[in-house]
Amino acid sequence: MLPLTQMPHCLSLFEDAKQSLTALGSGSFFMRGVFMKTDQDWMKLALTLAEATTGQTGSNPMVGAVVINDGRLVGQGAHLRRGEAHAEVHALQMAGERARGGTIYVTLEPCNHHGQTPPCTEAILKTGIQRVVVGSTDPDSRVSGQGIARLQQAGLEVKTHVLQEECNRLNEAYFHHRLTGLPFVTLKMATTLDGKIASHTGDSRWVTNEISRERVHELRDQYQAILVGVQTVIADDPELTTRFKIGGKHPIRIIVDSQLRTPFTAKVIDVSTAPTLICTTEAAMKSEHAEQFQAKGVQLLECGAGNRVDLGLMLQQLGKQGILSLLVEGGGTINGSLLAEHRVQKVIAFIAPKILGGKRSLSAIGDPSPDRMADAIELDQISWEQYGNDLCVTGYVKPTTSDEK
Amino acid sequence: MLPLTQMPHCLSLFEDAKQSLTALGSGSFFMRGVFMKTDQDWMKLALTLAEATTGQTGSNPMVGAVVINDGRLVGQGAHLRRGEAHAEVHALQMAGERARGGTIYVTLEPCNHHGQTPPCTEAILKTGIQRVVVGSTDPDSRVSGQGIARLQQAGLEVKTHVLQEECNRLNEAYFHHRLTGLPFVTLKMATTLDGKIASHTGDSRWVTNEISRERVHELRDQYQAILVGVQTVIADDPELTTRFKIGGKHPIRIIVDSQLRTPFTAKVIDVSTAPTLICTTEAAMKSEHAEQFQAKGVQLLECGAGNRVDLGLMLQQLGKQGILSLLVEGGGTINGSLLAEHRVQKVIAFIAPKILGGKRSLSAIGDPSPDRMADAIELDQISWEQYGNDLCVTGYVKPTTSDEK
Repeated sequence: MLPLTQMPHCLSLFEDAKQSLTALGSGSFFMRGVFMKTDQDWMKLALTLAEATTGQTGSNPMVGAVVINDGRLVGQGAHLRRGEAHAEVHALQMAGERARGGTIYVTLEPCNHHGQTPPCTEAILKTGIQRVVVGSTDPDSRVSGQGIARLQQAGLEVKTHVLQEECNRLNEAYFHHRLTGLPFVTLKMATTLDGKIASHTGDSRWVTNEISRERVHELRDQYQAILVGVQTVIADDPELTTRFKIGGKHPIRIIVDSQLRTPFTAKVIDVSTAPTLICTTEAAMKSEHAEQFQAKGVQLLECGAGNRVDLGLMLQQLGKQGILSLLVEGGGTINGSLLAEHRVQKVIAFIAPKILGGKRSLSAIGDPSPDRMADAIELDQISWEQYGNDLCVTGYVKPTTSDEK
Repeated sequence: MLPLTQMPHCLSLFEDAKQSLTALGSGSFFMRGVFMKTDQDWMKLALTLAEATTGQTGSNPMVGAVVINDGRLVGQGAHLRRGEAHAEVHALQMAGERARGGTIYVTLEPCNHHGQTPPCTEAILKTGIQRVVVGSTDPDSRVSGQGIARLQQAGLEVKTHVLQEECNRLNEAYFHHRLTGLPFVTLKMATTLDGKIASHTGDSRWVTNEISRERVHELRDQYQAILVGVQTVIADDPELTTRFKIGGKHPIRIIVDSQLRTPFTAKVIDVSTAPTLICTTEAAMKSEHAEQFQAKGVQLLECGAGNRVDLGLMLQQLGKQGILSLLVEGGGTINGSLLAEHRVQKVIAFIAPKILGGKRSLSAIGDPSPDRMADAIELDQISWEQYGNDLCVTGYVKPTTSDEK
């Protein structure tokens, strides 16, 4: 069997870089040698630098920067951790005096405001850089074109939108959050070939193989929060932590629990490993249970006055709490509701090459049951990954005119 | 997005051949030039010749043959159609006098009996070939080692089992039928990402895209018979013919219909386009309906004395009728029963990147509902194909100790 060359999206930029080398028969980017590198080439390098920080910048965007002078690389850098230097600063520091008269490539518009670090625009201006090439314009209202304007006012040549789509995709959660105020919602499912996630008894060990399950832990490391419905907590008592080789970050665990039915003995209630947040209703917030949960350090979030959690309100509140990215891990009820309300941006579906069968076996997505096949939610920008014999399909929910953002 | 290089199994041999060339930067097999070709190389060419006849040899196996002398190709051939010359004959005819002292590579053991054509062993002996390299031993009881024995007795050097696995796979239905007396059963399904084949109203237009549906017509062309349950006939009134660009063969249409509920108005009842066979019970065979179907030219097959068609008996009878390969196209009830009874050898699952959801939506595989995920039927020898944004997973049902053959 031939290996799939289709790479997971998060690795695709590395892969692109690798491929261009291989085609020329050399072992590294810089051995390409005789060819003039284009703005796209240098931006691709900046993207590769940024992408290598996946999972470590927290709610900050991943950013990469490259400085060149006379067609030669003189500096490179990436933003490593929230609160630390931005990518431009690292790259300019490496370049030192050789930045003067050169070009800086940066995947995201340089900031022009004092955040936890000084404005990058000023850092660039100080060095005598003459040209700035930008991937994405920063959607953050404190930047949003002002960084570019500042550089242009100072007389620098600024080129924008170079590999913009790739640069936007790199920080899809950051962009979505800045533009909508809501977390970027990814629905992860793991099914048999016939779409089953568990037998009628609830047994689900294991649908996918070990490599796929390892990949899920890596995903958890990359998302700020993970969300399940209370039925999943009751049925499976999951820990919802990241068990990941390099010691991953535990995401915030979010339980959608309209009536506060989460058992006090549930593993997610132990906040010593990771924070837990229960989204519930106004009525349930007034119950005795609510206090008991809070006494255990569990945060409760009031999401609507009805009988059931208002998912739109829930996402708004999570967005306000600074949660940019949310990984939904089921079960069928919450998956079905989020999809039907068009609140999912991305789907990651692991598919194991086995068939469970059975009308009473559990499917990944619960109600509502649409009347027509044409009512199915379509995905586009599809990519595939292979984990052993499991497949993983990733796609983005096609926006419809009725979409609530 | 990168294209998948994973090729459908039926094309993988072409692909292998292509790859070995590409690696050497040449455009055709014979431009490999300076390297000595091995027995495997020549057998691969013979496999490629055979595979190119997919869908046109009927119940006969696909066979390819290559004759070389002094390391050079002097003849090549394939069996094109049932009743016509075997692959060896074509290859030897092309070689002419240059066969003398040479080697013939043949994907399947040469026959030693008078069938519709004279024995290939005699044809080989006449030419003065010195060495015969064989892929698969023919499981047909009329050949089964006797072809090889005859050649050895005549003093030729015979090497067997070269790329045997690939050669067996090429004619998997033929091998299965000769060894078990039963048709090789392939279950085809086409589902959404969440395993649904239709909405709760039965609407299923369309699950997969046009390219996938075209591929299904190609599959129908490659199978001798196609099987559905009566519920599918009642719900969808399918034609079950091959609508295929090059004017494909229509498979025999088989309906599993225990109580003879197939409507007389159903499209499959019109045998002017393709033959139809209804598998039913002893009781139903005695009904008035039975005569009416037969009067319309529909063949009825008695499969057991119980209320429901005995699927084991059905397959035995189909095998006896010379049906080597059977494509099962659902619905859920017949799919579930065949799988549960371990009567499926291969699964081809088309997966569209869309999510239907809904507890009442229809799944590909009906009951029984197993208690444990570990009871799922596992597939191995997995391969993937990509048709536009649809994926197609092909695998073979792992035999279990309880398998009835």
